[in-house]
Amino acid sequence: MNSRNLTMLTDFYELTMANGYLQSGCGDTVGYFDMFFRKIPDDGGYAIMAGLEQVIEYLKNLKFDEDDLEYLRNKNMFCEEFIEYLKNFRFSCDIFSVPEGTPIFPHEPIITVRGPIIQAQFIETMILLTVNHQSLIATKANRIVRAAQGRSVMEFGSRRAQGYDGAVYGARAAYIGGCSGTACTISDRMFGVPALGTMAHSWVQSFDTELDSFRAYARVYPDSCVLLVDTYNVLKSGVKNAITVFKELEQSGHKPIGIRIDSGDIAYLSKAARKMLDQAGLNYCTITASNSLDEYIITDLLNQGAKIDSFGVGERLVTSKSEPVFGGVYKLSAIEKNGEIIPKIKISENAAKITNPAYKELWRLYCADSGRVLADVITVAGEVIDETQPYTIFHPENTYKRKTLTNFRAVKLQVPVFLRGECVYTSPSIGEIRSYCLNEINSLWDEVKRFENPQEYYVDLSKKLWNIKNDLLNEHFSK
Amino acid sequence: MNSRNLTMLTDFYELTMANGYLQSGCGDTVGYFDMFFRKIPDDGGYAIMAGLEQVIEYLKNLKFDEDDLEYLRNKNMFCEEFIEYLKNFRFSCDIFSVPEGTPIFPHEPIITVRGPIIQAQFIETMILLTVNHQSLIATKANRIVRAAQGRSVMEFGSRRAQGYDGAVYGARAAYIGGCSGTACTISDRMFGVPALGTMAHSWVQSFDTELDSFRAYARVYPDSCVLLVDTYNVLKSGVKNAITVFKELEQSGHKPIGIRIDSGDIAYLSKAARKMLDQAGLNYCTITASNSLDEYIITDLLNQGAKIDSFGVGERLVTSKSEPVFGGVYKLSAIEKNGEIIPKIKISENAAKITNPAYKELWRLYCADSGRVLADVITVAGEVIDETQPYTIFHPENTYKRKTLTNFRAVKLQVPVFLRGECVYTSPSIGEIRSYCLNEINSLWDEVKRFENPQEYYVDLSKKLWNIKNDLLNEHFSK
Repeated sequence: MNSRNLTMLTDFYELTMANGYLQSGCGDTVGYFDMFFRKIPDDGGYAIMAGLEQVIEYLKNLKFDEDDLEYLRNKNMFCEEFIEYLKNFRFSCDIFSVPEGTPIFPHEPIITVRGPIIQAQFIETMILLTVNHQSLIATKANRIVRAAQGRSVMEFGSRRAQGYDGAVYGARAAYIGGCSGTACTISDRMFGVPALGTMAHSWVQSFDTELDSFRAYARVYPDSCVLLVDTYNVLKSGVKNAITVFKELEQSGHKPIGIRIDSGDIAYLSKAARKMLDQAGLNYCTITASNSLDEYIITDLLNQGAKIDSFGVGERLVTSKSEPVFGGVYKLSAIEKNGEIIPKIKISENAAKITNPAYKELWRLYCADSGRVLADVITVAGEVIDETQPYTIFHPENTYKRKTLTNFRAVKLQVPVFLRGECVYTSPSIGEIRSYCLNEINSLWDEVKRFENPQEYYVDLSKKLWNIKNDLLNEHFSK
Repeated sequence: MNSRNLTMLTDFYELTMANGYLQSGCGDTVGYFDMFFRKIPDDGGYAIMAGLEQVIEYLKNLKFDEDDLEYLRNKNMFCEEFIEYLKNFRFSCDIFSVPEGTPIFPHEPIITVRGPIIQAQFIETMILLTVNHQSLIATKANRIVRAAQGRSVMEFGSRRAQGYDGAVYGARAAYIGGCSGTACTISDRMFGVPALGTMAHSWVQSFDTELDSFRAYARVYPDSCVLLVDTYNVLKSGVKNAITVFKELEQSGHKPIGIRIDSGDIAYLSKAARKMLDQAGLNYCTITASNSLDEYIITDLLNQGAKIDSFGVGERLVTSKSEPVFGGVYKLSAIEKNGEIIPKIKISENAAKITNPAYKELWRLYCADSGRVLADVITVAGEVIDETQPYTIFHPENTYKRKTLTNFRAVKLQVPVFLRGECVYTSPSIGEIRSYCLNEINSLWDEVKRFENPQEYYVDLSKKLWNIKNDLLNEHFSK
């Protein structure tokens, strides 16, 4: 699985530009690029960074093989010097990134790349593709997990994912976002995301009667018996037969797990099923619900008193159905010229689309007492936020909105991942990423965690950065 | 890329069921499964089948390696006999499928699998995942291509795709659905989907001035020069500079291609840019538009007289943003018992969710004169629709709605793909699939092709099949 060479998974224009830079004699110009995003999916209060481990894997394995080069040669667009360059390609950029599992906000540099522009540009497509996908799913999963209020949420969506990696890395990202596990077996094998699963309707249908099918399953899995009760009729048949089989299991010294309901009105059915199980003395048996669930339906079900112990969530999680795109972009922020870093800006009529220029760093300020997050600040690289002094933050557009912070802890969010092309970062285990994510989210105020109309989190520019941007804007619009 | 072993990309319950069938002594029971879907994405009039070639690839490469077996052993859920079975796994099912590029409709068996239930069940996840994804994108691409009314549509969405395969196979499916090409280089290498691309804003920003950047690009690509004109200001700067460079190219004997606009009001800007280009004698230069396009925006732009020659469509195509899930399911329709095929049905309170039982075949009836499609009919396997006799079709729910067809051609839509585990099908080239798709869509009535509220296409059951289903329903509900 990991042996795939994804080097050629790149927008064709990365290649035409790379060849162009080389032929224009500026391939070695040092460029600075930021990956950032503009809008949190589902109008949520925060997103979650995910995918860095796969970005690293990709960059470690960047390699053009002979067939790639032959393919490019046949395009009759690329000079032989460029083909030679690719043949001997050695990655040499610096990469700084926010760790996986970090809550992230619009306009922040999540990943910053510094290096020969021919390379720093080339890796755009894969960085965006990887981080956009996994951050999207981690963010969505986290919403669904929050809706479940402590109940376990399993990712069940492989069959409806957008391609194999949609399933494989989707399960990984969902776990980072707080899911308890997945149905996707290969994600367990590859990443250690716990995989679980029991039976489909076809199992039940393939036997002469539902009771036969339940008994057959219980015989094979007496200690991990979850029965799917909605193939024919949940209450009249499914739960009744499940109870029969569970009591038989008890009599033979085993302890069944519970039932799964996959259709019908889950609120009503789960309450009725709970009652039936309890009356049969099976109050320890759990009820799992699945069937087109998401954070809104789960919230509604729980509001109606549904008796559900865990949720299996499929297509609406693995495709982030309500908003299936994470709009991360990758923009040039500076280039070096004669040893100097020249900030670059992308202008747009839409103010939100104007980029933040310069080589930057990202800080998160925590309240020293409560540990709660206060604000994020983007500075020019090299600036220091001194925790011992009051620090004034201000809104980058409505600059009159300002606030002076004291008694805070300032943490640089980006960590070095590659230096001169060498990986200097060891990815935490997926369990560690998941715990870190949970902790960081706990440090956010509840107001940021609302599903509807959450409080906008402060992401400010340092005075120095704001001045650079303002000067470039004035320069541009005075033309 | 193709060397990945995806055998373990399966819902865990396929494994628990397989082990369960084996231990229950019914692994060799012959089961019949259908893949079908219930709803056309975006409430369209038809969907397009895609992904069969990748299903075939997967099935040819099904193989559990030692690490897979070790992983399963460590779960302490699977008996050693099952592990041995997987170790010596030899695929032996029959598979019948509608060819890629075929317009498909709800409730039709797109793929039918017959074989030992232990195997026929196991391959569910990958069949669904593969066909759901590619059919989704082919269907969406076709909508966008139709909206473009003959103008070329390029798939530009890799960076926002849901994982690597979302990009790679998304580009393939988009091409089947009618796109002219992709920005995704690896999809060109792997499948021959033509890849194209020119420059990003960063190219323009990295030079001291926009004009410098355009000149540098034109020097490298004098005969394939497309310039991105919206980095600073489309009309005041971008188009003006492009014209300067295009005239310089003309003077040195070259012929530029055109410009691309990636932001702002495309309708207004394209008209103004067209005028400027024409006035400069560059009426052959094309205008490409990109920026959050889909079938609705393209329709609106063209309605407003936008002067656009080709479209680059990104995230809304490659994720099918408006409806990112193709809801294909895989259901048991029959099992063999003592040499007899026993039809099986899945009951639901929701009539649309009740499955069609029995081993079936799918027919498409064309008007013998016009070549237009009249209706699809699902029959019990072995039934023959005799073209020389009038044939009465009727609505499967409102059975009083009936129609007798004469002078028609009846074509079986499913073709044998695997027989006893051996592949007997040669996938057409992607170009052939694309042409076939276009032809088949041309045989549909315009009423089915509307974006909004299209006419529902007839998919009927043969009298014999309808009777089998009705008997099973009566039997169930009389209990």
